[in-house]
Amino acid sequence: MEYGHGGDIYAPSLKEKALLDFSVNLNPLGIPPKVKAVFGTLAEECEAYPDPFCRELKHALAKHEGIAEECILFGNGAADLIYRIAYGLRPKKVLLPAPTFSEYEAAAVQVGAEIAYHPLLEEDGFSLDKRFLDALRQHQPDMVFLCNPNNPTGRLIPKGLLMQIADYCQAHGAFLIVDECFLDMAAGGEACSMKTELSRYPQLLVLKAFTKFFAMAGLRLGYLFSGAETVRMRVESAGQPWSVSVPAQRCGLAALTDTAYIMETKRLLPELGEALYKQLSELPVKVYPSAANYFLLKTDRSDLKERLLEKGILIRSCSNYRGLREGYFRVAVKSAEDNGQLMAALREIDFKERR
Amino acid sequence: MEYGHGGDIYAPSLKEKALLDFSVNLNPLGIPPKVKAVFGTLAEECEAYPDPFCRELKHALAKHEGIAEECILFGNGAADLIYRIAYGLRPKKVLLPAPTFSEYEAAAVQVGAEIAYHPLLEEDGFSLDKRFLDALRQHQPDMVFLCNPNNPTGRLIPKGLLMQIADYCQAHGAFLIVDECFLDMAAGGEACSMKTELSRYPQLLVLKAFTKFFAMAGLRLGYLFSGAETVRMRVESAGQPWSVSVPAQRCGLAALTDTAYIMETKRLLPELGEALYKQLSELPVKVYPSAANYFLLKTDRSDLKERLLEKGILIRSCSNYRGLREGYFRVAVKSAEDNGQLMAALREIDFKERR
Repeated sequence: MEYGHGGDIYAPSLKEKALLDFSVNLNPLGIPPKVKAVFGTLAEECEAYPDPFCRELKHALAKHEGIAEECILFGNGAADLIYRIAYGLRPKKVLLPAPTFSEYEAAAVQVGAEIAYHPLLEEDGFSLDKRFLDALRQHQPDMVFLCNPNNPTGRLIPKGLLMQIADYCQAHGAFLIVDECFLDMAAGGEACSMKTELSRYPQLLVLKAFTKFFAMAGLRLGYLFSGAETVRMRVESAGQPWSVSVPAQRCGLAALTDTAYIMETKRLLPELGEALYKQLSELPVKVYPSAANYFLLKTDRSDLKERLLEKGILIRSCSNYRGLREGYFRVAVKSAEDNGQLMAALREIDFKERR
Repeated sequence: MEYGHGGDIYAPSLKEKALLDFSVNLNPLGIPPKVKAVFGTLAEECEAYPDPFCRELKHALAKHEGIAEECILFGNGAADLIYRIAYGLRPKKVLLPAPTFSEYEAAAVQVGAEIAYHPLLEEDGFSLDKRFLDALRQHQPDMVFLCNPNNPTGRLIPKGLLMQIADYCQAHGAFLIVDECFLDMAAGGEACSMKTELSRYPQLLVLKAFTKFFAMAGLRLGYLFSGAETVRMRVESAGQPWSVSVPAQRCGLAALTDTAYIMETKRLLPELGEALYKQLSELPVKVYPSAANYFLLKTDRSDLKERLLEKGILIRSCSNYRGLREGYFRVAVKSAEDNGQLMAALREIDFKERR
């Protein structure tokens, strides 16, 4: 099967290399120290089935997020929940911005939904604006996926616009799924979250994960918020009872207690992001402004990924995103040292040579 | 949501108790030593996304099972694959024996399939026999799930009968899913496996897991075999690319190298099972013969689970299995010491007192 995402560091052509991976967008601080500490006693706990209701983790997350426990559902990563949402809520017509994360489309295809695309415009820096309200009226979807900030562009959707979109969806019986997997790592992200609007919009689902903020991609731990019990039950019933493993539950619980790590991440990421943006902007490539921990680049050198791979650096080609094409790339914000290596490698490339 | 399985040791009413859990059917040797050893270096590995194709694990499992690599698909436990099979192959009519593992039915319900039940008869010790061929002709399903040995009865389906069922399914375009999750722990199981018949029956899928044999229920690692590429692609496309976590892949790989553990399990389990069967048979309860590492019991004391819970022992009430009713219970084969504790507790119960 085709694999159209970043970070396939296990591919035979890559796995022998000591790669610096800029193709996935994870917290550069790595896995939290308190999560590491859990592994010492984890093996025996894995002999039992995981708690199908993630009770302890749910209790801790409710406090961390300021959300009522009963509004939370966990999954085997956010990607698992995207498929459960599709299978459980069975949309007939899905509206998606383009470009955006490709699994929304893949899940919609699985339930045979018709898919309408709302093209984000390069001249607007791919930002989502009021034109999306026209798209809603034009296409009349019964499900909408929005990624905030968007992947791979990093653009935030303003809260005011989100509320207008949610008003439309609520009035017209469409489910609105807002994917906030990168929001806690985005400058100004908190003010844009829709998690505070759950009781106002029973058609709203907010999707999040431990993957990015806690650099726990390998553990698979995602969650969603919904204020509507029937919605939660339909999504929950759409899969097995034991989707969240013991390591994921235990490490998630430990991650939430790592206050020092959380604070350091919130302090460090904006700094690292700003510094990398400034340096990237000095190159003869187009860098799109991004609130997130990654940047979309455009260059006439469509072989940029291959050139960097020769130098041991992996970036994400975005040519397979619907709405983008060859010459678009995404780089993550990593540690100052890693970012320095990326910049050094980029500076050695002759961007004037068109490929 | 209702939870109708064994082993919910996290329920508020149970979690403070030091329970001896006979309600789940896992290898009494516990997690393999070579798996435990992996946890020391696992934390950092969990920072990366898991290999979506489980390449290293697939290579090792192919060798271990004697199956071509390309015929293997992994999932987040066998339960994940049951739902993926339903979503990917979209049956219209599913035939299930009763009693059997309830997730087949739950997954079939999710895709709106009509479900026909073939009642296994108590007077036959719930064994599946040639009557099932009549049921196939009568109901004309396009998907059949068989658990071998069956859960919760422990009865093996003879290979000859399985071949006749597979012949029918192949000729009539029905998918036959044989769940062999307990087969490697069953006395005489090897001769009953359908994994050797993949090339003969493109409609056949064989389901297995690390869960039971390697006592790795908390890690979530299941797999299936199918000789048909289109079938595998449909099942794979029915969910996210990263369903198998890094801990599951790493521990699965380590488990397969633990030859001493595997040999000890194969030597010890039949012994433990026979001894427990003999002791259980001396009680005034009905014990059904079982090839598996668990036994189905029947008693007029329908409060047996509650009585044992008072003594710190958890068994599985089977009253919620379709085709069974109050008074049926399932106990796992555990270590000699644990089995001794179960027997001591059972001997204290007055089975003549009807409840």
